[in-house]
Amino acid sequence: MRIGIDVMGGDFAPRAIVLGAILALNELSTKDELVLIGDKNQILPILAEQNVSPDRFNIVHTTDTIEMCEHPTKAFNKKPNSSIAVGFNMLKKKQIDAFSSAGNTGAMLVGSIYSVNPIPGIIRPCTMVTLPKENNKSGILLDVGTNPDARPDVLYQFGLLGSIYAENVLNIKNPKVGLLNIGTEEEKGNIVTQATFKLMKNTKDFNFIGNVESRDLFKDIVDVIVCDGFTGNILLKQIEAFYRIMKKRNINDDYLEKFNYENIGGTPILGINSTVLIGHGISSPIAIKNMILLSGNISHAKLLGKIKKALIKYTQNNP
Amino acid sequence: MRIGIDVMGGDFAPRAIVLGAILALNELSTKDELVLIGDKNQILPILAEQNVSPDRFNIVHTTDTIEMCEHPTKAFNKKPNSSIAVGFNMLKKKQIDAFSSAGNTGAMLVGSIYSVNPIPGIIRPCTMVTLPKENNKSGILLDVGTNPDARPDVLYQFGLLGSIYAENVLNIKNPKVGLLNIGTEEEKGNIVTQATFKLMKNTKDFNFIGNVESRDLFKDIVDVIVCDGFTGNILLKQIEAFYRIMKKRNINDDYLEKFNYENIGGTPILGINSTVLIGHGISSPIAIKNMILLSGNISHAKLLGKIKKALIKYTQNNP
Repeated sequence: MRIGIDVMGGDFAPRAIVLGAILALNELSTKDELVLIGDKNQILPILAEQNVSPDRFNIVHTTDTIEMCEHPTKAFNKKPNSSIAVGFNMLKKKQIDAFSSAGNTGAMLVGSIYSVNPIPGIIRPCTMVTLPKENNKSGILLDVGTNPDARPDVLYQFGLLGSIYAENVLNIKNPKVGLLNIGTEEEKGNIVTQATFKLMKNTKDFNFIGNVESRDLFKDIVDVIVCDGFTGNILLKQIEAFYRIMKKRNINDDYLEKFNYENIGGTPILGINSTVLIGHGISSPIAIKNMILLSGNISHAKLLGKIKKALIKYTQNNP
Repeated sequence: MRIGIDVMGGDFAPRAIVLGAILALNELSTKDELVLIGDKNQILPILAEQNVSPDRFNIVHTTDTIEMCEHPTKAFNKKPNSSIAVGFNMLKKKQIDAFSSAGNTGAMLVGSIYSVNPIPGIIRPCTMVTLPKENNKSGILLDVGTNPDARPDVLYQFGLLGSIYAENVLNIKNPKVGLLNIGTEEEKGNIVTQATFKLMKNTKDFNFIGNVESRDLFKDIVDVIVCDGFTGNILLKQIEAFYRIMKKRNINDDYLEKFNYENIGGTPILGINSTVLIGHGISSPIAIKNMILLSGNISHAKLLGKIKKALIKYTQNNP
């Protein structure tokens, strides 16, 4: 696999990104190629300082950068030589198999939707995170911010996408899909979750187990938790708040340490024609390393083909 | 003040409720009267066992109970001699000033809306909780479950209600009201929060400070956090999950201990013609004590008159 990383994106770019790429190199298979996309004149001195040969990477030189504060669509179109635009261009031409960035999130979404494009049949792509369960297994939560308003048919597809991800990337057989709600009974919730429950309850597309409450988010009763991007984003940022408070109060705990964003390893965008991950703006070298490794895992899982296959079945079931 | 408590409501009723009432008695002013509403034949033996004279309470004997699993509206109408129905009847006749129960939440809402009634001008009553801030102050979050779908004008009123509560019960001058959202910029969020921001941004009814993210829920940048009941309920139950995990992992911390539901002291219903609080079904004696004390504080704050006064101004401003 050829794994691309945007060296120019993130609050501590390019240094934190190059250091993270060096860390990732040591854990990647020798069959994988790490493609650094960014300003060669900034990358080479950092590699030299770290005594790492540039030959261990494929460096693709870019001359421009989309800044964090720039308008995503405008910047993406105005800066074809930016690291993000070049990354998506390479994805499109299949010169790389995966692309990650801790840079401008909006620009990453623009690239995903308008350059790489959604998989035909997908109404709306979404973003997801892996959640650590209390029993050391993992679950996933989606959407976490891309679709603040999500219709029932969109949420239904999130269930399908999440199920395929959990089965192929997390290796969970017949993953349990739950709908995030404020009660477990079918009639509970808001208008959207009530209608979504009706769509999901007899599905054969995935293993729907019913409504799940946020108090059970970390238990092993569910593998894939489906919600709109508004709710998912609110949940994710509350996890961040708890982690921050815990650290501030000098609480150290093996399990709770898993909530450190560094260990979560970036946010995959599901439902598009490639493997794309978005990292936290403040990404450290460890966070970048984990994002690169996760993007490699997703590419190796050949998720795309499996989603396309499932979508054919889904379209037949839901004509 | 005459403070009523439903002795029959809750998973550990009547015992936990009577024990909680005894604890509350020691902290209430001698001018306050505690009214125990429930089966006298069950209450008296517990008081005797605890060596507490029944004369210290006003005991109102009831012969029926609305069970946790019953349909709220049907049970409320079918059981006029149940402790919840009797409590609301006493509230309506102003024989008590406040009423709390850890019993059937739906029946408590039915009583609040159809027996006590919303304050004229209030579109939808809501439920709220007090959140402990990291600097030892308190903030509030509303709605936490009553309105899973809330229109912008309803959310606007939650801002008004929360502001009056924070000012009068928590004694915060000119409380900072924030709209819970997934970004701080005006254009962020879902359709409802975007429209709500527009309604709130130039308001003179309360001190609107803009959007607030869930990562800042416990910071002192905001006193009143407004959201729909779906999002609020999800947040509240995630707090519950974190607290449970913390206890399970033997983490003890003074600040995080404040997230123990026992210390939160029940959920006031705002926007109705009386003081009504709902407790957690699993309420312990300490939780009941804190709910009784909170209901006393709210009654003493004369919230109702202040909300009515603010609503007159609000109706003039929003004809």
